Amino acid sequence: MLYLIGLGLSHESDITVRGLETVKRCTRVYLEAYTSILMAADLASLEAYYGRSVILADRELVETGSDEILRGANEDDVAFLVVGDPFGATTHTDLVIRAREMGIAVETIHNASVMNAVGACGLQLYQFGQTISLVFFTESWKPDSFYDKIMENRKIGLHTLILLDIKVKEQSLENMARGRLIYEPPRYMDIATACSQLLEVEEMRKEQAYTENTPVVAVSRLGSPTQKFKAGTLKELSEYDSGAPLHTLVMLGRQVHDLELEYLYQFVDDKDAFRSKVEQDQEFFKPPPYVPPEENLSD
Amino acid sequence: MLYLIGLGLSHESDITVRGLETVKRCTRVYLEAYTSILMAADLASLEAYYGRSVILADRELVETGSDEILRGANEDDVAFLVVGDPFGATTHTDLVIRAREMGIAVETIHNASVMNAVGACGLQLYQFGQTISLVFFTESWKPDSFYDKIMENRKIGLHTLILLDIKVKEQSLENMARGRLIYEPPRYMDIATACSQLLEVEEMRKEQAYTENTPVVAVSRLGSPTQKFKAGTLKELSEYDSGAPLHTLVMLGRQVHDLELEYLYQFVDDKDAFRSKVEQDQEFFKPPPYVPPEENLSD
Repeated sequence: MLYLIGLGLSHESDITVRGLETVKRCTRVYLEAYTSILMAADLASLEAYYGRSVILADRELVETGSDEILRGANEDDVAFLVVGDPFGATTHTDLVIRAREMGIAVETIHNASVMNAVGACGLQLYQFGQTISLVFFTESWKPDSFYDKIMENRKIGLHTLILLDIKVKEQSLENMARGRLIYEPPRYMDIATACSQLLEVEEMRKEQAYTENTPVVAVSRLGSPTQKFKAGTLKELSEYDSGAPLHTLVMLGRQVHDLELEYLYQFVDDKDAFRSKVEQDQEFFKPPPYVPPEENLSD
Repeated sequence: MLYLIGLGLSHESDITVRGLETVKRCTRVYLEAYTSILMAADLASLEAYYGRSVILADRELVETGSDEILRGANEDDVAFLVVGDPFGATTHTDLVIRAREMGIAVETIHNASVMNAVGACGLQLYQFGQTISLVFFTESWKPDSFYDKIMENRKIGLHTLILLDIKVKEQSLENMARGRLIYEPPRYMDIATACSQLLEVEEMRKEQAYTENTPVVAVSRLGSPTQKFKAGTLKELSEYDSGAPLHTLVMLGRQVHDLELEYLYQFVDDKDAFRSKVEQDQEFFKPPPYVPPEENLSD
């Protein structure tokens, strides 16, 4: 059996009881280590917590070495641990499809991921549209396909969850060219960078999918002991010091309920100023006022 | 401290290790018992698992008796257990706001909810639009505001998560009128009822937000030992026997990736027939083909 086990967001003890029991009895345990990190734990503390060794699975192993991960899993139990949920932002459907081709049964032990725990900021999950990802810009590479998706979400009033880039085990162009297996230190996008990049794209596109006054919520270290939320405009949070990673950003849509707003006030500097920005932002993409049909007017 | 603790989807042991440790040391433990159920557990088995008594919190207690729940929580620890995640489909922001007004600290211990675990059907979470809820229709009450939301999602190509009605501790009109505290047996909407109601609304509205050939995925008992997925058209699944509750439905959007489709094939009766329905459905709301600008043609 292949077990896909979600680890949740932060602590070693965020694993479910059923997940922990399963880890303890598997023959081999892999930890997917390239799309996210467990904020309050590392490999050594996980191994101590489980009382067993854990194999780090980098992108190369997962994408090209899945047969090694699945070796023997038709008879023994193999665990594949994923920070958050196995079917969260990064899905592992290709590993599951390969397992099924090899006749290996698969069971998933779910956990919280940013995709649902972000509801803790007070915005209602069922009011979110499609999720977008924001990668680190370089001088020559500023992909902006997310812009159209934000536009689509906001045209129909929905909030947008914006996942921020994580660079783990990346090589510099020079080291890659010379074939040197030297990796750059990991980088995690912070809130200020995310907001600045968003504003840079709006500056280029000028279609007003959002403006510098559009309200956003910074979600920092979600689910960890130092979790913090901060609400403000894109412009304000482009200068916000969000501290240690991980971070996520939410851009508000037009359909903000009073209860959502009431909840966000605890995360703002100035309640009246924030409400005024929210009201101003709601004018974008607002449907035109109702006009009764012609035939009724002729009565 | 008020602890909001997610229980996950099905088993007693789907609680996180940190959640279980917290439950064991709280002064009082409440279980929110009106918006969902834990499929493989009940109150007695939870009490046995935790080794302590658990107070059932019905809608009335949560909505009007929050001061009773929060009593003493500024000095002692109180746990409020929620099936899924505390900030999943039903949020408990009002309880948190009340706690903060009373000067009571709040900590959330997250878990999986249908809002993220539905990714296990193979459709990618970041391609979902807003979530809708479908309530049991009666002869005189067939609310259809969800229809416009499905239309909005599908116009921009997104999948729609459709949460199905749960009726717990409901009174009949007669018993309510006579003031008799007699409750109807709980009812959980199944897949056939959901698909039939969706088709009934399309029949009334005729705006083709979807048709009887639109592909959907039935998600039954998600996260439980008898979890089952079934993919087919709305018409096909309007006659599907989905078995014991709980159920959720996902309607596909136009942006179906090959990997998503490949994954869904394991849940269909006839792969070629399903692919043909998906391709046919993708014609709805498809953007017009690209036409090069006039000035290029004049060269």
